[in-house]
Amino acid sequence: MADSKPLLSLDGDPMAAEALLQDVFGIVVDEVVRKGTSASEKVCEWKEPEELKQLLDLELRGEGESQQQILERCRAVIHYSVKTCHPRFFNQLFSGLDPHALAGRIITESLNTSQYTYEIAPVFVLMEEEVLRKLRALVGWSSGDGVFCPGGSISNMYAVNLARYQRYPDCKQRGLRALPPLALFTSKECHYSIKKGAAFLGLGTDSVRMVKADERGKMIPEDLERQISLAEAEGAVPFLVSATSGTTVLGAFDPLEAIADVCQRHGLWLHVDAAWGGSVLLSQTHRHLLNGIQRADSVAWNPHKLLSAGLQCSALLLRDTSNLLKRCHGSQASYLFQQDKFYDVALDTGDKVVQCGRRVDCLKLWLMWKAQGGQGLERRVDQAFALARYLVEELKKREGFELVMEPEFVNVCFWFVPPSLRGKKGSPDYSERLAKVAPVLKERMVRKGSMMIGYQPHGSCGNFFRMVVANPALTRADMDFLLNELERLGQDL
Amino acid sequence: MADSKPLLSLDGDPMAAEALLQDVFGIVVDEVVRKGTSASEKVCEWKEPEELKQLLDLELRGEGESQQQILERCRAVIHYSVKTCHPRFFNQLFSGLDPHALAGRIITESLNTSQYTYEIAPVFVLMEEEVLRKLRALVGWSSGDGVFCPGGSISNMYAVNLARYQRYPDCKQRGLRALPPLALFTSKECHYSIKKGAAFLGLGTDSVRMVKADERGKMIPEDLERQISLAEAEGAVPFLVSATSGTTVLGAFDPLEAIADVCQRHGLWLHVDAAWGGSVLLSQTHRHLLNGIQRADSVAWNPHKLLSAGLQCSALLLRDTSNLLKRCHGSQASYLFQQDKFYDVALDTGDKVVQCGRRVDCLKLWLMWKAQGGQGLERRVDQAFALARYLVEELKKREGFELVMEPEFVNVCFWFVPPSLRGKKGSPDYSERLAKVAPVLKERMVRKGSMMIGYQPHGSCGNFFRMVVANPALTRADMDFLLNELERLGQDL
Repeated sequence: MADSKPLLSLDGDPMAAEALLQDVFGIVVDEVVRKGTSASEKVCEWKEPEELKQLLDLELRGEGESQQQILERCRAVIHYSVKTCHPRFFNQLFSGLDPHALAGRIITESLNTSQYTYEIAPVFVLMEEEVLRKLRALVGWSSGDGVFCPGGSISNMYAVNLARYQRYPDCKQRGLRALPPLALFTSKECHYSIKKGAAFLGLGTDSVRMVKADERGKMIPEDLERQISLAEAEGAVPFLVSATSGTTVLGAFDPLEAIADVCQRHGLWLHVDAAWGGSVLLSQTHRHLLNGIQRADSVAWNPHKLLSAGLQCSALLLRDTSNLLKRCHGSQASYLFQQDKFYDVALDTGDKVVQCGRRVDCLKLWLMWKAQGGQGLERRVDQAFALARYLVEELKKREGFELVMEPEFVNVCFWFVPPSLRGKKGSPDYSERLAKVAPVLKERMVRKGSMMIGYQPHGSCGNFFRMVVANPALTRADMDFLLNELERLGQDL
Repeated sequence: MADSKPLLSLDGDPMAAEALLQDVFGIVVDEVVRKGTSASEKVCEWKEPEELKQLLDLELRGEGESQQQILERCRAVIHYSVKTCHPRFFNQLFSGLDPHALAGRIITESLNTSQYTYEIAPVFVLMEEEVLRKLRALVGWSSGDGVFCPGGSISNMYAVNLARYQRYPDCKQRGLRALPPLALFTSKECHYSIKKGAAFLGLGTDSVRMVKADERGKMIPEDLERQISLAEAEGAVPFLVSATSGTTVLGAFDPLEAIADVCQRHGLWLHVDAAWGGSVLLSQTHRHLLNGIQRADSVAWNPHKLLSAGLQCSALLLRDTSNLLKRCHGSQASYLFQQDKFYDVALDTGDKVVQCGRRVDCLKLWLMWKAQGGQGLERRVDQAFALARYLVEELKKREGFELVMEPEFVNVCFWFVPPSLRGKKGSPDYSERLAKVAPVLKERMVRKGSMMIGYQPHGSCGNFFRMVVANPALTRADMDFLLNELERLGQDL
């Protein structure tokens, strides 16, 4: 029989719970907010997996541990984790630490609710609506719909699912076998989630037709026309084009106006994957890169990337005003979306999504926006562009660096050419040898903990570095450091 | 040109960032950890949507706001949010506040990394592996695979996608049109995500064959056999059975051994949706409810429900040791999963999933487990069962309550029969009038802020309350309160 005493985690002592949280918060402030953002500390503390396993003592046992042990575990977890908020973390499309966004995330975690009904998330149902409205306004829409998704890949999948449902509502019930073969179009520079999504949604990766991109990485609208004709000739039904605003590697922006013209001519759903580049809409100076986005049917935009809102904050925005999201995904579960509630059940947004429980992803962005204002966020975007430009100019002044191309965004792609390869561009094994440089330098910087920057091969180009300027705390000194550090790390190569 | 000064969120003043976070953390401790868990405070502060919009001043503007204003906003967000950690929040399958889990969530948010590569998430790649290993061991598997997903619905979708891929690997490339019509089986008591998932995955809801359940809500294996024969007779290919361990409304456990026998006979993938009931595996006393689960091919289990790990913590566990997850979902993106890295790239688990960026969901569970030990978590599960039993016995002693059925889990489903309906069970409009009681009481309790408990119609039963005993801080006094409060709220009906 149940005890009459509560079974609290800390032996029924709520003060101890508070004390634990205070101590952990102190560690977070010391180790992440302070040291984790300090250029004089390491960005990572590399350990081989086997050694790290030992250091962390990961095993979960029957017996619990003392508060002191738990605090040591918290310290160790942070110590051996990569500091993505560090000014020398250039490895991904997200970085930096916005204190207001982090504050929003801490509140979100403490309130621990699900975004599905007004009943249990009144503040966040209304807040999500307002945040999405604001993002739509920046796209250029005065009405529409939308939802926050667990990442850009799932936002992209939503768009594909909505487009096929809009054209073939039968699909929801009868499945793809009831439909003609479908074709969707994207450029070869698109994010890999388009193909992953096509497989997951049952369309198959073959349904994704790859459109050529120009030397800057932008989709070629004439080739899109060609691919559409080709697909039709093969008996497939084109239904969607996914254009990209800010490609993953090169940071290219597809020409949306020209692509929208093609979509309009053929009656195709235009989705814009602006997961990375969407935040440029905040900048009066640079938003022309997305000209035409207002003609899209759907837009995926991840404020957790360039705006540093924190993982994850990924909006799917829709121009639709016909309740397509709910019609496509809804299933009217009677235990959750009761129709005899005492408030307007249109506020229960949970049936818009394919998840059931859904995390609150709006507060972090809302709170940051309230604190910074649109103007502050605009400065952040402009600053990133300006620092990327600074890096490019400095890089050109140095002998050992070669740009892959002039960037139009904040991805700066370049090779570091070590001393032994300089002036040998004509030699037959030059490309092969150059491609081996980045992995070696990457290993050295990670083992040293001095910085992190990604590299990859791309098309006909061997491994090159992709520098991402996203952290709002970056300065010119960090750009200089990047170049100096690569020279230091590669001087003997 | 870029400035040489950093563009920090708080005017380049890192001390101000720390001060903000300290202040916000203080508010969280006061308002959520202390007041939010106190029975003498309200569980919710109901406002009509229009009024709440005004109170929150949601609009996002060009100008930023002062630190003081931001702190007031944090207070308001918390004030008007539902306290899911409150001892009178019985509304969902999650509730309560585990301080260690919350500590893990705060650290997760501050480190803000993505779970896709060892490079940027070394601690969490290894930790996820260990946590999944432990969960698999409780299922009864000494090997296997798995991944944390953004919620149980997506875990269930993963299982369906894996099952069809295993049978028809061609599907990934060629899509469902290349396949015969498929059929999957689940009971009519299953979670709605099975149908949502079938639609999303392109199978269509028609592909989901509903198997009958008995009066306790358990799938009837004989009817499963019948449905399989029926589907085959109609030309469909059965490929998966989704059994449920802990149904959403009734808390029923499907008979897994008998269902596994059927699956074995027909060569079908057995998925167990144990999102709700999986945590019972921790209890030596009650784990017999899931006997046979070790024969499953996949299991979905959400420790954010009964274990209070925090949203979201949803594991998909697989018996497979053939790297099915990666083969099914992988796309080898060259910018992220470089094969020439200096460490074992098998540690880059990101290609196991259909997302790209993926939140860290393992730390909160790991830290809680380290602190509580498996024994502490077992006590938590046993305590929930015991309190549910206490509630049932108390409820039987009172005139105005009627059980829908004897519960076998911690869902206690019952009607409150108001004074005017007592003794009138035979009257023709009894059921209709009884079904109107729960919505009225729900409105009253929410407006008063005294407690929250869900209701729904179900099958032939009109609206009844579904009490969920999950919060580890609950005591018998909270059970007594529930009954007393319903009597108070409904005495004039």
